[in-house]
Amino acid sequence: MSRRRVCIVVNSRANYGRIKSVLQAVRAHPSLELQLVVGASALLYRFGNVREVMARDGFVPDATVYTIVEGETPTTMAKSTGLAIMELATIFENLAPTIVLTVADRFETMATAIAASYMNISLAHTQGGEVTGSIDESVRHAITKLAHIHFPATKHAADNVMRMGEPAATVHMTGCPSIDAIAELDLSLSADLFERYKGVGPALDPAKPYLVVLQHPVTTEYGHGLEQIAETVEAIRSTGMQTAWLWPNVDAGSDDVSKGLRMFREANPTAPVHFYRNFSVEDYARLIANCACLIGNSSSALREGAFLGVPAVNIGTRQQGREHAPNVVHAPYDRAAIGGAIRRQLMHGKYSRSSLFGDGKAGQRIAEVLAQTDLKVQKQLTYA
Amino acid sequence: MSRRRVCIVVNSRANYGRIKSVLQAVRAHPSLELQLVVGASALLYRFGNVREVMARDGFVPDATVYTIVEGETPTTMAKSTGLAIMELATIFENLAPTIVLTVADRFETMATAIAASYMNISLAHTQGGEVTGSIDESVRHAITKLAHIHFPATKHAADNVMRMGEPAATVHMTGCPSIDAIAELDLSLSADLFERYKGVGPALDPAKPYLVVLQHPVTTEYGHGLEQIAETVEAIRSTGMQTAWLWPNVDAGSDDVSKGLRMFREANPTAPVHFYRNFSVEDYARLIANCACLIGNSSSALREGAFLGVPAVNIGTRQQGREHAPNVVHAPYDRAAIGGAIRRQLMHGKYSRSSLFGDGKAGQRIAEVLAQTDLKVQKQLTYA
Amino acid sequence: MSRRRVCIVVNSRANYGRIKSVLQAVRAHPSLELQLVVGASALLYRFGNVREVMARDGFVPDATVYTIVEGETPTTMAKSTGLAIMELATIFENLAPTIVLTVADRFETMATAIAASYMNISLAHTQGGEVTGSIDESVRHAITKLAHIHFPATKHAADNVMRMGEPAATVHMTGCPSIDAIAELDLSLSADLFERYKGVGPALDPAKPYLVVLQHPVTTEYGHGLEQIAETVEAIRSTGMQTAWLWPNVDAGSDDVSKGLRMFREANPTAPVHFYRNFSVEDYARLIANCACLIGNSSSALREGAFLGVPAVNIGTRQQGREHAPNVVHAPYDRAAIGGAIRRQLMHGKYSRSSLFGDGKAGQRIAEVLAQTDLKVQKQLTYA
Amino acid sequence: MSRRRVCIVVNSRANYGRIKSVLQAVRAHPSLELQLVVGASALLYRFGNVREVMARDGFVPDATVYTIVEGETPTTMAKSTGLAIMELATIFENLAPTIVLTVADRFETMATAIAASYMNISLAHTQGGEVTGSIDESVRHAITKLAHIHFPATKHAADNVMRMGEPAATVHMTGCPSIDAIAELDLSLSADLFERYKGVGPALDPAKPYLVVLQHPVTTEYGHGLEQIAETVEAIRSTGMQTAWLWPNVDAGSDDVSKGLRMFREANPTAPVHFYRNFSVEDYARLIANCACLIGNSSSALREGAFLGVPAVNIGTRQQGREHAPNVVHAPYDRAAIGGAIRRQLMHGKYSRSSLFGDGKAGQRIAEVLAQTDLKVQKQLTYA
Repeated sequence: MSRRRVCIVVNSRANYGRIKSVLQAVRAHPSLELQLVVGASALLYRFGNVREVMARDGFVPDATVYTIVEGETPTTMAKSTGLAIMELATIFENLAPTIVLTVADRFETMATAIAASYMNISLAHTQGGEVTGSIDESVRHAITKLAHIHFPATKHAADNVMRMGEPAATVHMTGCPSIDAIAELDLSLSADLFERYKGVGPALDPAKPYLVVLQHPVTTEYGHGLEQIAETVEAIRSTGMQTAWLWPNVDAGSDDVSKGLRMFREANPTAPVHFYRNFSVEDYARLIANCACLIGNSSSALREGAFLGVPAVNIGTRQQGREHAPNVVHAPYDRAAIGGAIRRQLMHGKYSRSSLFGDGKAGQRIAEVLAQTDLKVQKQLTYA
Repeated sequence: MSRRRVCIVVNSRANYGRIKSVLQAVRAHPSLELQLVVGASALLYRFGNVREVMARDGFVPDATVYTIVEGETPTTMAKSTGLAIMELATIFENLAPTIVLTVADRFETMATAIAASYMNISLAHTQGGEVTGSIDESVRHAITKLAHIHFPATKHAADNVMRMGEPAATVHMTGCPSIDAIAELDLSLSADLFERYKGVGPALDPAKPYLVVLQHPVTTEYGHGLEQIAETVEAIRSTGMQTAWLWPNVDAGSDDVSKGLRMFREANPTAPVHFYRNFSVEDYARLIANCACLIGNSSSALREGAFLGVPAVNIGTRQQGREHAPNVVHAPYDRAAIGGAIRRQLMHGKYSRSSLFGDGKAGQRIAEVLAQTDLKVQKQLTYA
Repeated sequence: MSRRRVCIVVNSRANYGRIKSVLQAVRAHPSLELQLVVGASALLYRFGNVREVMARDGFVPDATVYTIVEGETPTTMAKSTGLAIMELATIFENLAPTIVLTVADRFETMATAIAASYMNISLAHTQGGEVTGSIDESVRHAITKLAHIHFPATKHAADNVMRMGEPAATVHMTGCPSIDAIAELDLSLSADLFERYKGVGPALDPAKPYLVVLQHPVTTEYGHGLEQIAETVEAIRSTGMQTAWLWPNVDAGSDDVSKGLRMFREANPTAPVHFYRNFSVEDYARLIANCACLIGNSSSALREGAFLGVPAVNIGTRQQGREHAPNVVHAPYDRAAIGGAIRRQLMHGKYSRSSLFGDGKAGQRIAEVLAQTDLKVQKQLTYA
Repeated sequence: MSRRRVCIVVNSRANYGRIKSVLQAVRAHPSLELQLVVGASALLYRFGNVREVMARDGFVPDATVYTIVEGETPTTMAKSTGLAIMELATIFENLAPTIVLTVADRFETMATAIAASYMNISLAHTQGGEVTGSIDESVRHAITKLAHIHFPATKHAADNVMRMGEPAATVHMTGCPSIDAIAELDLSLSADLFERYKGVGPALDPAKPYLVVLQHPVTTEYGHGLEQIAETVEAIRSTGMQTAWLWPNVDAGSDDVSKGLRMFREANPTAPVHFYRNFSVEDYARLIANCACLIGNSSSALREGAFLGVPAVNIGTRQQGREHAPNVVHAPYDRAAIGGAIRRQLMHGKYSRSSLFGDGKAGQRIAEVLAQTDLKVQKQLTYA
């Protein structure tokens, strides 16, 4: 019998970390054939050229596709979605996958989901059923309603997927593949990690405590990015601690966040803050596993952070309502509140490990389901 | 206070009938400004040039936009969605609507929904919560997860929308605007109706009983359209009755259905079957209100048909699970079964009126909600 | 040394006939690797599904791509060009050709030329330097200014290319590959040819004299298609001769031409006119080689018609200024003039063969140049 | 009689300076109506948000449109062209211009030209007939072959346009509108100019001699940008002079140039080099009119530089073959040669004014022709 062709579309640095173990498990599975498409910000230099990181891991794409319409506004986010659908449709037509797997809740995820749905290709989806803020909240659930096979990460998320009307037989609670990559990893920080990734700003000393910051724009609060990031910047500056800061993703409003960071750099050229574009999946895990506090609104604070016990301060509404372990403290867009939360976390130190988002076996479970599950494309609401 | 700008995107002949009363009510409302965009198959000659029908009703578009990628395959349906998103994003950027209203469950509907969602424009949606077959089933619920304001047509549909996690305050059971257009209409058949719409085939006699057929492709059964339509063709032919047959919509597989119809025409040039591209909303209501039986898989058999008491035979899976009144009899893709169902309906004759899908006041209710309701773009699953 | 990858994009039925011998010669050449992309109207059923014709000739595409935005208006012609550029760019990125070869002067040709030019891929072009009417005239010369390697069909065309500022070393007068396909062909008309291609209308008798008509819209005269085709229709009808009529291409205005033909069909169901979508390259040659007169505005009357000695009536401005042999008589959009010209050609009968557009060896010459010629992408006007 | 609607598409900071006087003259002309479309990099923050500069000059766009596909590779340059065509077609359909005016030779220029051509809109073009390197050389002449009305800047350029086969009656030698903006300008450098435009890097002192650098990628030499810019960087560094450096445009390879500049900044944080995104048209003229030397490969060195008598060093192939006044010295991509050329220019100092590219009246002449000239869309090669 011919192997099922599983096409996985990797669109961003975050995507890759969340799906890498699935790529490995699909590639290794005797009944599956991996088709890899790399697109969107995963091709762009200013997001760390994820394609090259993947190449070092041995993943050669079957197709690459540029789909970001430049501007980082709500309009261009919509247009990038449309462009990606058009292009992915042609790619799927030529690769003819049996199953398309799409990751989480980004606009590229939506594009992948729509192209596959209309083309009668079975659509599998990770991270369904989670609850957050931002447009991601709408998009994640819309994708659940398009997907045929669900791989939620937690029990609560799996329940949510079923309550939305998805048949229980299609909901597979596997844990999140992002945990797989770090479950058995040597988490020690190599002495040269800060140096290897270049970036800009004063050198950081891996032997001393450091903060990590990653704050993305909140698309549904577009226009407020500059003032929001200013609060974080001031809170960090007031700690006086050395800091590894990652540039934000490609969402609407990213320009504003970046502008805030550049303004800070220009005004404080000697502040001990170093800006990075990207890390390998493993080095990012090491970076946050060893930090004194992870600050911002990245889901990695809640997800990988839970497993690694990282003291984290989550700012604002982007992760609103998302499940998390005790390692996360919340703060509004307010420098005093953020500063206070950081201080509390610094005093607390490392948290104990939580397997809320998975036990490190998600990739294998997902591959196995993809190989075995019945495939059909006609959906129907279970309430009917 | 400035009026809210309500942008309504009309993309097909079916769209227009389902939203016409809302166009009228929004235009007439003192707190609302209507912005009209006409695109997709509503611009195309072979679908009856809906733009011209609308112009005769006094609706001049603020923008027109061609978005159909030709081919009528699953691939081009996906690409048409992507193209429409890209173009609508630019149009919304330039028109700057307060609210975008999208109709039902087609790929153009999805495109409208995605563009508006990512652009932080409040999205209103009609026909949410209904259950059917085809890709429409997936798409309709996905749009519900993107929409901020819901206008389901029935009580059951409204329940479904809330069960999927939408806040009750955003769910307004208004009935379907398609009923408004016909509620107070003089339904008598003018003697020249069959002539006025041209089309091809032998002349029909409005004084004698006639059938109406409208059968679209089922996108999730792509590749089976030719054999499916052949069963209907044979069933109709066996009745020997005069028939008004409408060409199918622009979905994937439409080419196959059309091919089946053209083959029939060539083989039976004298059969009393006349093919039409489009009717005005009102004349379509008159056409089916006076027919002996409406056959195919159009939702109009279940929706307007309920209100008009039209004896209808619904074929196959496209309307699978959809609520309907007693006027509808179901049949599989089988000439004998279809023929039998038609004969039963001919014997039964007209049904009594059902207001399952509305009482004729939906347009005004919708306009009122659009004028009054709180607008916010951040959604959150109610289960959270 | 690695073989040069020559990517040829086939976009329409006309394209294929004009490049088939090059496809064969490239495939057979030891220093070249053929990459075949099939797109635009070559994928569409209503243009005869050229892809299937090619498959029967053993050509399997490396990629297929839908690029026609439906509407057949000037607007959609522009949009189809844009869509094709976007998609071809991704395809070229993934196929990485050494040389892209583009055929003649259509909007898909332009799309291919622009994608290759901006991507620093050497661009080869056939049919440069010819003079006609329609937008093709502008586009053909614009492509010459983008192309690095020129394969004009005639001496005069080659002169024109050089006069426009192209270096003589890049201009290779090879003749037109369209002649290759017919140069050594058995041109006898098989008894079943008219039947094999289906189409619609009364059966034609291959034993009796017949006309062939192929009239495309003139894009620069958009809006006049219906009245223009009406003149031709009346001229043909007045001859009373049996006629094989081909549907027009996908250019702006095609809807109008088709509408005129459909109106004629409805009004004259028994007229001895049969409508066809497409023929194989060889059967089209046989069709016109044996016809009493070829009427319309297809370049095949001037090009293949010269070689085959076909009595031809060229109507209107589409071929204005194009070189041709004595086999062509011109007529304006006027039924009397067209009718008179047809009668003169019927009296004249077959013309003697002219090799104005080639001797049947173009394909091999082109492949040889592609294998040998220096490749560079920086152009410079020779006048400078 | 209704006024002719002249639609001008402004796509970049360079575009605007080259067409501003035409915008003014068209707006002021009683027989013309200005339609303004702003798109591509003119909307982007990192290119100085030209839209805002224009707004300060009183120009409010009729439509804005995002058309840059991010990546700055040859592939994305092609895709951006395609995207712009698709979007501009819709915009032209809705604005219905009588004439479209397109500027120079960029990919956005090509997009504008193709959309207008296929839509049977009269196309006017500035800067035709000039000779350079880069893909611009191909594109400029291709646009000439699409355009109906030509506004070359110099006598030599006008000759070139006619030699390429354009009718003399359509060729209007008006001079370049870029000269208009500076012809009667007060060119004195305000004390705060360097401060007002922010940017990054040490403060510059307007009272001391300074260099200006603007070096774009050469698309046809894609992949060599980093090594090319490194030579310029070293040459500048060796002068020790304070320098105003502008970021490059959006062409393929820009990422490499920017990378080189960022590397320089990181390695030499105290070097007296300040980086700017954009200046107003007038302030840019003042900036270069008062500089000690203008270095790089911008056409402004040759064009506005001639009029202003700016000592300039032109590097590499981008302007290869372009007409210029004595103010320009050429250098290859070589730090020693560039350094030597700069020193020669510093010793020479200011040049006398040349009106090679215009006398300051181009805008009015162009508006007058647009108001008066016969409009027709069917072109024909004059050699025919």
